[in-house]
Amino acid sequence: MRSHKCGELNTQHLGQTVALCGWVHRRRDHGGVIFIDLRDRAGLVQVVFDPDMAESFAIAEHVRSEYVLRIEGIVRDRPEGTHNPNMSTGQIEILGKHIEVLNESETPPFPLESDIEVNEETRLRFRYIDLRRTAMQQKMKVRRDVTRNLRQYLDDHEFFEIETPYLTKATPEGARDYIVPSRTHQNSFFALPQSPQLYKQLLMIAGMDRYYQVVRCFRDEDLRADRQPEFTQLDIETSFMNEQEIMAIMEEMIRRLFKDIIDVDLGDQFPVISYSEAMRRYGSDRPDLRIPLELVDIAEEMKGVDFKVFSGPANDPNGRVVAMRLPEGGDLSRSVIDELTKFVGIYGAKGLAYIKVNDLATGVEGLQSPIVKFAPAEVWAKVMAKVGAQNGDLIFFGADKIGIVNEAMGALRVKLGLDRNLLTGPWKPLWVVDFPMFAWDEKAQRFTAIHHPFTAPSCSVEDLVANPGTALSRAYDLVLNGTEVGGGSIRINRTAMQQTVFDILGIGHEEAREKFGFLLDALKYGAPPHGGIAFGLDRLVMLMTGASSIRDVIAFPKTQTAACPLFNAPALVSEEQLKELGIRLRNPAGKTEKQD
Amino acid sequence: MRSHKCGELNTQHLGQTVALCGWVHRRRDHGGVIFIDLRDRAGLVQVVFDPDMAESFAIAEHVRSEYVLRIEGIVRDRPEGTHNPNMSTGQIEILGKHIEVLNESETPPFPLESDIEVNEETRLRFRYIDLRRTAMQQKMKVRRDVTRNLRQYLDDHEFFEIETPYLTKATPEGARDYIVPSRTHQNSFFALPQSPQLYKQLLMIAGMDRYYQVVRCFRDEDLRADRQPEFTQLDIETSFMNEQEIMAIMEEMIRRLFKDIIDVDLGDQFPVISYSEAMRRYGSDRPDLRIPLELVDIAEEMKGVDFKVFSGPANDPNGRVVAMRLPEGGDLSRSVIDELTKFVGIYGAKGLAYIKVNDLATGVEGLQSPIVKFAPAEVWAKVMAKVGAQNGDLIFFGADKIGIVNEAMGALRVKLGLDRNLLTGPWKPLWVVDFPMFAWDEKAQRFTAIHHPFTAPSCSVEDLVANPGTALSRAYDLVLNGTEVGGGSIRINRTAMQQTVFDILGIGHEEAREKFGFLLDALKYGAPPHGGIAFGLDRLVMLMTGASSIRDVIAFPKTQTAACPLFNAPALVSEEQLKELGIRLRNPAGKTEKQD
Repeated sequence: MRSHKCGELNTQHLGQTVALCGWVHRRRDHGGVIFIDLRDRAGLVQVVFDPDMAESFAIAEHVRSEYVLRIEGIVRDRPEGTHNPNMSTGQIEILGKHIEVLNESETPPFPLESDIEVNEETRLRFRYIDLRRTAMQQKMKVRRDVTRNLRQYLDDHEFFEIETPYLTKATPEGARDYIVPSRTHQNSFFALPQSPQLYKQLLMIAGMDRYYQVVRCFRDEDLRADRQPEFTQLDIETSFMNEQEIMAIMEEMIRRLFKDIIDVDLGDQFPVISYSEAMRRYGSDRPDLRIPLELVDIAEEMKGVDFKVFSGPANDPNGRVVAMRLPEGGDLSRSVIDELTKFVGIYGAKGLAYIKVNDLATGVEGLQSPIVKFAPAEVWAKVMAKVGAQNGDLIFFGADKIGIVNEAMGALRVKLGLDRNLLTGPWKPLWVVDFPMFAWDEKAQRFTAIHHPFTAPSCSVEDLVANPGTALSRAYDLVLNGTEVGGGSIRINRTAMQQTVFDILGIGHEEAREKFGFLLDALKYGAPPHGGIAFGLDRLVMLMTGASSIRDVIAFPKTQTAACPLFNAPALVSEEQLKELGIRLRNPAGKTEKQD
Repeated sequence: MRSHKCGELNTQHLGQTVALCGWVHRRRDHGGVIFIDLRDRAGLVQVVFDPDMAESFAIAEHVRSEYVLRIEGIVRDRPEGTHNPNMSTGQIEILGKHIEVLNESETPPFPLESDIEVNEETRLRFRYIDLRRTAMQQKMKVRRDVTRNLRQYLDDHEFFEIETPYLTKATPEGARDYIVPSRTHQNSFFALPQSPQLYKQLLMIAGMDRYYQVVRCFRDEDLRADRQPEFTQLDIETSFMNEQEIMAIMEEMIRRLFKDIIDVDLGDQFPVISYSEAMRRYGSDRPDLRIPLELVDIAEEMKGVDFKVFSGPANDPNGRVVAMRLPEGGDLSRSVIDELTKFVGIYGAKGLAYIKVNDLATGVEGLQSPIVKFAPAEVWAKVMAKVGAQNGDLIFFGADKIGIVNEAMGALRVKLGLDRNLLTGPWKPLWVVDFPMFAWDEKAQRFTAIHHPFTAPSCSVEDLVANPGTALSRAYDLVLNGTEVGGGSIRINRTAMQQTVFDILGIGHEEAREKFGFLLDALKYGAPPHGGIAFGLDRLVMLMTGASSIRDVIAFPKTQTAACPLFNAPALVSEEQLKELGIRLRNPAGKTEKQD
C-alpha cells in the first residue's frame, strides 16, 4: 500500500513518486493550495495539493484531523525560504497526485500536541489517541530499544532466555499475591508470580547455566504513587559466578545500554558502598549520589550536653544524632524552614533543629539558632569543624531513633538537593552491598528477611545461628539517582543453610516443607553455586526517558487504583462462571468499586 | 570460577591449564586411575585423575553422580585408540590437577540418560533433574534459538515489540477465561488474556504501525491431550498491508526460521488453498499435505443407486459421499479394517465401506466387497475411474452428514498416511484462506464466528447482511504437516462493519457496548486498515524438535490435569486471603482436587 514511511523522506528521494499512508496531523489552506501534514510512526511530511488536480483537491478539501489517508505524489524541493529545520523532512514536500481516504475520524477527545496537558484518566481512557502523540511514540520506541539492547547483550554473553510459568504458587516476596481460582482443582488457587525467583534457581539446579527473561511480575500492593499491579522485570540468574563477577558483567550491560540508547557515559567503575556506609552518610540504602549533602554523626559530641533532645538519642544504642550541612543555606527563610520541618514530620521527626552559620570567626556568637545555648561553645566548634561548616551555611540536625533520623534526614537531603538544584551531575550509579541478612521486627518480635529467604549470608551456618542480627548477606543493589534499578544476590545452594535461614525467620520445618519442600529437595541433588539479579524495566526506561511516571512508559498501564479505564477492567463476572470455579462473592450487594 | 565450558574444549586447547565447573555425569575407576565425565550446558569432557596427585585422587574417589565439581587441569590428547568420535570433546581429555566439591548430590530419582523412559509425572516433579538430560537441554536451546531468530526477523522488519497487560478483561476467544479477584475493586475480576487481540488492534489505531510480542496466553479449557492452560504465542499486527503482503512476509520469516535453525528448506512458495478446497480434498482445514491420499466426491454417481447408505447422503444438501483410494491397500487384513471401522466410529461414522480392487479388467467381477452388489457396474466403473483406481488398491467410502464424513474420512486419511508410511516428504506447509465468516450453530440456532468477531469479511456490509451464511472472511491459517501453526486475518476497521458482525452474531447493541464499547469508540477515530497473525510458539518448537508433546518444549509445564507437581500448584489459600478478596469457597469441605 505504501512505498515509504512519511518521516523517512528527504532530499535523496527528490523526483521520486512515492505512496504514503498515515494520519492527517494538520491541514491548512493557504494561497489557494491545501497543505496536509501526514503523520506515521516515522514522523511527519508535508503534502501539497494544487487545484489543478481537481479530483484529489476536492477530496483533500474535506479531510480533517486524524483521517487516515493513502497519498501518491512526487517528492520535490520546498520553495526557497519555506524549508523547516524543525522537521526531519523539512527540506522537501510531496506534490500530491492521488489521495484516498482509508478511514475517517471524529474530532479526537484531546489535541495530539505533546505539550498540551491532558488529564491522565482521559489519556488512559483514550490511550489509542494518547499513544499517537510524539512524546509517547518516542517513549515506546526507547522502551523497545532498551529491551532489545539488553537482550542483545545477554544473548551475546550466553544467557538463555527461558520462559517460566505465570500460573504458579504463592511465593514469599512480601507483597500480596494475586490468586487465580482453578476450575479443575476446586478450592485450590494458582498465584501469579511476584517474581520468577524460585524458577530461576531451579533452572540453575537444572544446569541451564545462564538464564534471563523479560518477565511480567504481579504484586497486589496497597497502591503507592508509582507502583503498578503488573510490572516488567529483566530477570537474570547465573551459575558459577561470585558477586563481584555478576556485578561486573551487569555493570557493563547497563553502561553499554546508557551509551547505546541515550549516549550517556555512566563512568568507568560504579562506586561500591556498604549498606552501613550508605545509611550513615545518606540515611538511605538507595542514595542519590548526585546530591552532595551528607549526614554527619555527632552523637559523640552530644552525649554530654544538657539538651535531652540531642543527648537522649546520643546515649541510646538505638538512637542517632546527625548534622547535615547545606552550603550557602543561610538564605533559607523562616517559612521555608517551617515547610521543611513539616516535611520531616511526615517521616516521624518531632522537629527540625538548625543553625545558621553567620560568622565562624566569632565562635558561638556567629551561630544563629535557639539551640546554640543548649551546648557549650567547644561542642559547637567541634561540630562545625566536623561538618566542614562555612560562613553562610545552614546546618540541620536530626536526633531520634536511628530509623526516624535516617528516613527524615535522608528525605530532607534529597528534597534540599532537588529543590535547590545542587545536583553534581546527571547520572550517578552505585552498588550497595553488605546488607544485613535480617531485620528485627519489634512488633512481631521476630526476624524478617531484608532481601528474600533464599539470599546467601556471607558467613557459615554456625556464625549465622550465633549472630543472626549482625550477619551480612551476599546481596547487591544497583542504585541510580536515588532509585533502585536492580537488586540481586548470591543464593543459598545447600539444604542445611536454607533450613537454618527458614528457622531464623520462624518458618517451622512443617511450613518450610509445605511451602518450599521442592526447593529443599532440589538443593540435595547437586545445586551449583549461583546468583542473579533483577532489574525493574519500567523504572529503568522511565529514568532513561525522563518520564515522570512509570505509567508513561507502559503502553496500557493501570491507574493508581489498579484499574483500566480503557477496557473498564476489572469487571463483574457471571454467577455461572463463579459457580464453575467453586467460589461466591461474600457481599454481592456491596459496592462493586470500593475505592473509585 | 572457570576458564572454559566443558563441552567447548577441543584440540585447540591442548596444553592449556583450564578451570571447569560442572556435574559428574559418570565416574569410573579403570586401571588404577579415575575417569570423570564432567558435564555442563555445553557438553561433556573426560577428566582423568592419577593416583600421584594423592589429595585430588582421594577426593575424586569419593565423588558420585551429579556432584558439582570445580576442576583444574591440563588439556591433553587422548591416548592412541581411546578417541571417542561420539563426543565433541572426544579427541582430548583433562589431566586433573585440582578438584573441589562445590556441592554433593543424593542419587537422582532417575538416570539422566535421555534414552531411558521415565514416567512423566516423575519427570515433572523433579523437573530440575529432567532438564539436565541432554535431550531436554537441546530442546530448550532450540526454543531459545527459535525465539531469537523470530525476534531478529521482526526487529529487522521494523516491528516494535510492545508489552500488553496480563490483568485485563474477559475476551470472546471462545474458551473460558481464568479470572483474578481484585482486592481494590471488590466483586470485580480481572481476566487473564486468551490473546492480546484487542490490544494489538488498539496499538494499530494508536499508530504503532508494526507490532509483535512473544506473549503468554491463558485458556481454562477442558484439557485435551496436548493443551496447556498457559501457552506462548508470537503475536503480530501490522497496518497498511493486505493479506497477500502479510502472508508473504510471514512466510519468509518461517522459511528463514526453518533454514537457520534446522537447515530445512520449506520451498519457494507455500501452496495457498481455499477452505472449501481443503475440506473437499482432505476433509480438514489443516490438511497434512505430506499424505498423498485424497477424498473424491461421488455423490453425483450415487444419487440414483438403490443403496440408502449412499443415496441418502448423496441426495441430502447437508450430506456428502466420498471415496478415498489407498494405493496398494489390498493387502489390509480384515482385522485391520475392523480396527479402522472402529476408528472412524470415534468421529461418528456408522461404518466403513470399502472395495478391494483385484482386477479392473474384469469389471465388477474384479471388485471385492459386499457393497458391490448395491450399485450397477457402470456406476462402479465411473467411481473407479474418478478415484484413479489401480489393481491392488483398496477404496474406502464415507457417506453421512458433511461434518461427519469430513471428520471421519479426514482422520482416516491421516491415520493411513502415518500408519502405512506414505509421507511424501518431511515438511509440507500451506496457507488455507477464504474461510467462511460464520458457522451456523444448529443447536443454538445462531451464527458463531469461525475466527473471531474482529475478522474482516471480503464483502461489503450490505452483502454480509444479505448472505451471512456464505460470506467469506479475509483470514489465513498457516498449516504445517497437519498442524495449524499460525492463524490471522485482516481486521474490521470501521464501526459500521464491526456493529454488523456483532448483530449477526446476536450480540445486541447493549452487550456490544458493554463488552466492546472501547473498540467501537476507537474505530471512530481514524483506525487504519490493519491485520495480523499469531503463531503458536510451543507447537512450532515441538514440530521443529520432533518432540512428542508440547510439555517437552516448555521448561515448567502443567500436567494434563492443569497442575504443577513440582510446586504442587494450585494450592489452598488462607481464609484470611479469601476474605480480603471478598470471595468464599462454595464447598469448603469438598474434595480439593476434583479430577486427580
